[in-house]
Amino acid sequence: MDRLFRLSQTCPDTGARAGILATPRGPVPTPAFMPVGTHGTVKTLTPHELDSLGASIILSNAYHLYLRPGIDAIEKLGGLHKFMSWQGPILTDSGGFQVFSLGHLRRVTDEGVLFRSHIDGSEHFLTPEAVIEAQEALGADIIMAFDECPPYGEDPGRVREATERSHDWAARCQRRHGRTDQALFGIVHGGTCAELRRHSAGVLASMDFAGYAIGGLSLGEPKELTLLMLEETVPLLPPEKPRYLMGVGSPEDLVDCVARGIDLFDSALPTRLGRNGAVFTRKRRRNILNSSFKNAERPIDEECDCHTCRNFSAAYIHHLFKCQEMLGYRLASIHNLRFITRLLADLRQAILDGSFTYYREAFIEHYQPTDPRMRAEQKRRWLESRRVEYPPQD
Amino acid sequence: MDRLFRLSQTCPDTGARAGILATPRGPVPTPAFMPVGTHGTVKTLTPHELDSLGASIILSNAYHLYLRPGIDAIEKLGGLHKFMSWQGPILTDSGGFQVFSLGHLRRVTDEGVLFRSHIDGSEHFLTPEAVIEAQEALGADIIMAFDECPPYGEDPGRVREATERSHDWAARCQRRHGRTDQALFGIVHGGTCAELRRHSAGVLASMDFAGYAIGGLSLGEPKELTLLMLEETVPLLPPEKPRYLMGVGSPEDLVDCVARGIDLFDSALPTRLGRNGAVFTRKRRRNILNSSFKNAERPIDEECDCHTCRNFSAAYIHHLFKCQEMLGYRLASIHNLRFITRLLADLRQAILDGSFTYYREAFIEHYQPTDPRMRAEQKRRWLESRRVEYPPQD
Repeated sequence: MDRLFRLSQTCPDTGARAGILATPRGPVPTPAFMPVGTHGTVKTLTPHELDSLGASIILSNAYHLYLRPGIDAIEKLGGLHKFMSWQGPILTDSGGFQVFSLGHLRRVTDEGVLFRSHIDGSEHFLTPEAVIEAQEALGADIIMAFDECPPYGEDPGRVREATERSHDWAARCQRRHGRTDQALFGIVHGGTCAELRRHSAGVLASMDFAGYAIGGLSLGEPKELTLLMLEETVPLLPPEKPRYLMGVGSPEDLVDCVARGIDLFDSALPTRLGRNGAVFTRKRRRNILNSSFKNAERPIDEECDCHTCRNFSAAYIHHLFKCQEMLGYRLASIHNLRFITRLLADLRQAILDGSFTYYREAFIEHYQPTDPRMRAEQKRRWLESRRVEYPPQD
Repeated sequence: MDRLFRLSQTCPDTGARAGILATPRGPVPTPAFMPVGTHGTVKTLTPHELDSLGASIILSNAYHLYLRPGIDAIEKLGGLHKFMSWQGPILTDSGGFQVFSLGHLRRVTDEGVLFRSHIDGSEHFLTPEAVIEAQEALGADIIMAFDECPPYGEDPGRVREATERSHDWAARCQRRHGRTDQALFGIVHGGTCAELRRHSAGVLASMDFAGYAIGGLSLGEPKELTLLMLEETVPLLPPEKPRYLMGVGSPEDLVDCVARGIDLFDSALPTRLGRNGAVFTRKRRRNILNSSFKNAERPIDEECDCHTCRNFSAAYIHHLFKCQEMLGYRLASIHNLRFITRLLADLRQAILDGSFTYYREAFIEHYQPTDPRMRAEQKRRWLESRRVEYPPQD
């Protein structure tokens, strides 16, 4: 694969970057946000809708696809792009995060991970090599190394052990990776320990991956800590390679993390919030079920150019949510994703224009972030709701 | 309003008719099927999708919109077309069927109906005049008289009483109806009693409605009885007026009822089946969750030109249903509705070509109808599932 990343401009004040990921399935202008298509579908939306709302790359999860419908099934159907009918670039996550947060974990050894499926309790053993093979079979344009991902608040000794193991697994992934049309990204770990983050960034930087993800963040830690870890990590990564912060997707966080030199993001937040009736506006996140929308003839956001805002009143979306109509979940998902892709396009343009600092200050001045305690509580509840416990079978 | 219906061709063998409903919002080539948008949304779909799958008219329910968000709310937002962003013709059902099947009925008098909302148990009193006013405020292109709709199997004396009351209410609806840009349809009743059906058709035919619906059928009675009632009713209706059979939507029934001179149909069946994974093909109804679809690279129906079949394999739709992904419900709904609109377009063309009898025979030869006992059982379960009982409040 030719050089994946072309850096166009760096903001001299902040380190924010504009560039292009040149994937085999088309260019991705960065900074970019990847909508999350866990089961091979960005929930409620067609690929055509994703395309028209400005998504240039999407993410899918090797873990979920491995369990259902199975990697072989997708390979026989012509690979993931054909399976889901999305012709643009795809990044597949390796499943590290999912195995450790979603599966019922049985045993982690240097060799790999034994876990139970969160769907039917069946036992599976995954190694770094198997995960690379799976991602090669799926055929995504960017694939991720397999990593051990401890939760926030884990014992520091365990975090260190997991980080070292992730380095070892990253090397094994690199050795196994054969497809030259796929870019393999390494994942920096180190929990919320600055020293360990620097160590991890250094080790991975020396390994020459096509790109670098920063994992193990946005797991319920205070936002200041997230940003601090970025500041410790990013300067140690090779500037000519793309940097991907995993699991970040709120407007305020995207602005702050772009300012710290991140190029790529993914998060299910915009679609998950949308399905729950929380919609982004240039001022703040609003709840569409709020009675103030009952008679609102205006769209959700007057400045928005999305299909939802161009065609429907906020009152109509409010009504759809009151009736629990699926069209409501769709229209809110479209709006939220368009809000995010437009925000990133605006940030990119500002970086290219040299007006990033100004744009960021204006954004911060006008946008009221969600209360940190509410955010933390929502995150905690979400992470907890993902844990499905099966009766022990041994 | 100018003459609503133009009859283009009648099949000399069967009485099947091709025509055009000339509504203020555009022509509806008949025979036509109306997708059902109960809460002002055809479940899971946007108006743009309905348009592109060939729907030329849709139905919505005054009863549901009256309860939520309220008629006033929609009127203030510019009427139903604007509210739901559908610029084509709309027919609103009066709510007779809903009040009697869905609401918790309190009392029926000659004056009107006292019922409890199926949503919150609140009490409401509806008269024929109030229902016409509501439909005028909603602004549909075709509106329905308010009728009393007894269930299948009701005592014959009660059916006679309800039929006479519906005649009286139809006259009151006609007197109250003022908007000249809306066509008002009367509804023939009479349960499954041929003599009463003939009587009802005669009474309503003498009242000069813009069109005639046949109500109180497709409520769980055997199909032979449905067809017999049509044969008793249709010849007594004025041939220059459109005829609308309420609540019919399976492929085999549509073919049989078009052959008996029906011009217009509505049913939630295609979308409801779609959301449950039952998809139409030219041979029969299939269950997408069937394991034979697990690896099916072909679309649901190779002959189908819908968005779903043109873009996705049956295996992908199968996978979406396995994961309970909303996109699956959408794609199956699109396919089923397109199947039905295409079937009716084909029937129309065959009537115009003079090949209707041949087309019908070919259809019957190739299409395996759903087992009548299964159909009856599904209908019974559906009707039962709609009944929500609230604790008595008096």
